[in-house]
Amino acid sequence: MKHYIQENKERFYEELFSLLRIPSISAKPEHKPDMLRCAERLKELILEAGADKAGVYPTAGNPVVYAEKILDPSYKTVLVYGHYDVQPPEPLEKWRTDPFEPVIDKDPATGEEAIWGRGANDDKGQLFMHLKAFEFLLKTGKLKHNVKFIFEGEEEVGSGSLPAWVKENKDLLKADVILVSDTTMISDKVPSINCGMRGLAYLEVTVTGPNKDLHSGHYGGAIANPITTLCEMIASLHDQDGRVAIPGFYDDVVELSAEDRAQLARAPFDLEEYKKFLDIKEIKGEKGYTTMERTGIRPCLDVCGIWGGYTGEGAKTVLPSTAHAKISMRLVPNQLSSKITKLFKEHLLAIAPPYVKVEILEREGGNGFLIPISSSAYQAASKAMEEVYGVQPVPSRGGGSIAVLAEMQQILGIDPLLMGFGLERDTIHSPNESYLLRQFFAGMESIALFYQYWN
Amino acid sequence: MKHYIQENKERFYEELFSLLRIPSISAKPEHKPDMLRCAERLKELILEAGADKAGVYPTAGNPVVYAEKILDPSYKTVLVYGHYDVQPPEPLEKWRTDPFEPVIDKDPATGEEAIWGRGANDDKGQLFMHLKAFEFLLKTGKLKHNVKFIFEGEEEVGSGSLPAWVKENKDLLKADVILVSDTTMISDKVPSINCGMRGLAYLEVTVTGPNKDLHSGHYGGAIANPITTLCEMIASLHDQDGRVAIPGFYDDVVELSAEDRAQLARAPFDLEEYKKFLDIKEIKGEKGYTTMERTGIRPCLDVCGIWGGYTGEGAKTVLPSTAHAKISMRLVPNQLSSKITKLFKEHLLAIAPPYVKVEILEREGGNGFLIPISSSAYQAASKAMEEVYGVQPVPSRGGGSIAVLAEMQQILGIDPLLMGFGLERDTIHSPNESYLLRQFFAGMESIALFYQYWN
Repeated sequence: MKHYIQENKERFYEELFSLLRIPSISAKPEHKPDMLRCAERLKELILEAGADKAGVYPTAGNPVVYAEKILDPSYKTVLVYGHYDVQPPEPLEKWRTDPFEPVIDKDPATGEEAIWGRGANDDKGQLFMHLKAFEFLLKTGKLKHNVKFIFEGEEEVGSGSLPAWVKENKDLLKADVILVSDTTMISDKVPSINCGMRGLAYLEVTVTGPNKDLHSGHYGGAIANPITTLCEMIASLHDQDGRVAIPGFYDDVVELSAEDRAQLARAPFDLEEYKKFLDIKEIKGEKGYTTMERTGIRPCLDVCGIWGGYTGEGAKTVLPSTAHAKISMRLVPNQLSSKITKLFKEHLLAIAPPYVKVEILEREGGNGFLIPISSSAYQAASKAMEEVYGVQPVPSRGGGSIAVLAEMQQILGIDPLLMGFGLERDTIHSPNESYLLRQFFAGMESIALFYQYWN
Repeated sequence: MKHYIQENKERFYEELFSLLRIPSISAKPEHKPDMLRCAERLKELILEAGADKAGVYPTAGNPVVYAEKILDPSYKTVLVYGHYDVQPPEPLEKWRTDPFEPVIDKDPATGEEAIWGRGANDDKGQLFMHLKAFEFLLKTGKLKHNVKFIFEGEEEVGSGSLPAWVKENKDLLKADVILVSDTTMISDKVPSINCGMRGLAYLEVTVTGPNKDLHSGHYGGAIANPITTLCEMIASLHDQDGRVAIPGFYDDVVELSAEDRAQLARAPFDLEEYKKFLDIKEIKGEKGYTTMERTGIRPCLDVCGIWGGYTGEGAKTVLPSTAHAKISMRLVPNQLSSKITKLFKEHLLAIAPPYVKVEILEREGGNGFLIPISSSAYQAASKAMEEVYGVQPVPSRGGGSIAVLAEMQQILGIDPLLMGFGLERDTIHSPNESYLLRQFFAGMESIALFYQYWN
């Protein structure tokens, strides 16, 4: 495939850029028309790559793009999953380039060429590798599989509409593996394949004190400040050992055997490099676990956003009426998102002091899942990546969540296979998202080889 | 003076409205020409009221209006302080009338007539009472004082330029009392005279964790979240008894005698009404003090604003790089703003955990002050208000801050006297600022009587 990439890469860029230029931000209702535009463009690209049929299917939310190439019913079937929606680009002032005007440019830190823009990696850049690997195999007569594509437009907001569509189209989606590129590898030097993802429970908490904003001089000291109260509640959610202090939170967490922990510990990890990359002096996490374990096999709770009162320039002396926080909990397999959501709500209402009102909205949720390393698909992927990277990939546990995959696994009875080619440096969800060309091409090659080795 | 008001009130309205129509918003640089226009108009009005001379004096910021009427060097001299700048009117959509097109209209809640518009009370409406009381006394031959007026245009933004002007003009400003109407009374039924204002120290705290926003799935649980850390730091700033937990914070707070507390407790206070007005179930504050004491004679710390991470619609899973809070401390007399600012900074840096960086910016500050109740000026004001209101005014402590008065007190060696006629209902600094005609006229009468009783 190397040769095919060399001959076609300018066209690849242009095709991918046509997707990246569409601001398909699922979190913002004003981008509704962009979602449809992006889905339609994706459909065109799949047809151009050689699919027999492709369609944009309405759902209760953003449309699903489905396409297929059925060569022979006796062949194995690969169901490629991806998502064409992206995260909001804010804060805009931190981008060096326009987030929706993609460019190829050198990484200022390393000099390596990369694609820069929102979605360059997550997930437009990664799903696009599948289109091109498929196109290559098809055009060169090497394709010996049936291939189905399902791309959704709500992954960044919880995949609310996809499960229903998958349930309604169970027969259409029959396959032998769900192939996904929407994750990262451990590092440049250490290719890895995710064999588990964390689940998610995401809630929004509103604390209300007085029914109006007040002059902080006239009332300060005499009534509870809802910001302070929210901070106190948040501060109480972790204990001294860095454990989440919600009763029952760890009840369903399966402790890994010493052997399994040793297997995970094979992945190289340099704490000094890690701290340097993040510019922090110390790490912090649950007592008794390594950094890799804290993000791989342990659940956690994070405040993703907080706001309240006066946040503009200068000094306004206000005792605000409300304060808000967005709180996400990453869950490990066997923890149910619905149960953790319930425990969180019960706990927060239980600790809410009598001088404030507390409201909690559920924003997103999904369960974690595990993928058996012993499967023939995992083994084929491992072989393919070893050929491209020169080292055997390490089985890893992704700290992130692709909630819908656990649901698809359950509805369709098919295991996902996570061949992700992102790197930490890509800063997905952040300003200056990018995707190294080296990984972009190595990903295409690995995917093409996977098809060849999985027979 | 009642009779004089009845005969002249239509003219009074027109004169005051000519000031209110000028959007002298000191916080917005684009209103610079309006500041000068307002100062000039104020000068005209003082001359029309009978001052011998009046001038608009440039400063590093907005001009100062100074005027005087010297009748006899042997008379006592009253220095009237006020400010002609106003708060920004935003949010505009919440005003029922144009903030800069004043009208007289009924209060929708009570049916009482009031002046509506930005500055109707704070402070154009209140300073105007002094012009008219002066005019009345002068025209009726009752004035037995020398009167000086000093009106600044930067009170709402920290009075940056006034202290230097006062220092340069110490001789010009010689007087026996600084008379101010820029505060509120306890309630409709309970006239009060402020005998102390709280000082202020206002700081902005920034907590930085990793050097970029991160995917909360990839890092959550393994490194410190700066929002959580900021919340933990804020939560630690109060102890179990509601006291501010900054070492040394209370060192300079003067405890009031039982007698002084009993005197303050004369002010009627209905806790149930207070909670109903704010729609809260419980109050909260420093143990061992009443609500009136907590806002009047005790310092406090409030978070006026907090922000960090994703605060938009929906769910974004981000572990942010930074979190911010604006924190104000209201100080009591004898606490120095500069010292408290230093203690706050030292304490926050001391408790900052090693896994984050903490930066602190000073935003605003000023000392509180006390006015002796025993002074002849206070006694005269009390007698004047008792005659107008039919009840003896209560000495109260204002929870807010007029930082420049403490500085003027220090520079000139003259005590201020705070005869404020505002009410909580006037919603100064907020939409639909208004000033009851009843208070507007009662204020003029009280001021005129003050001159007569203070001899």
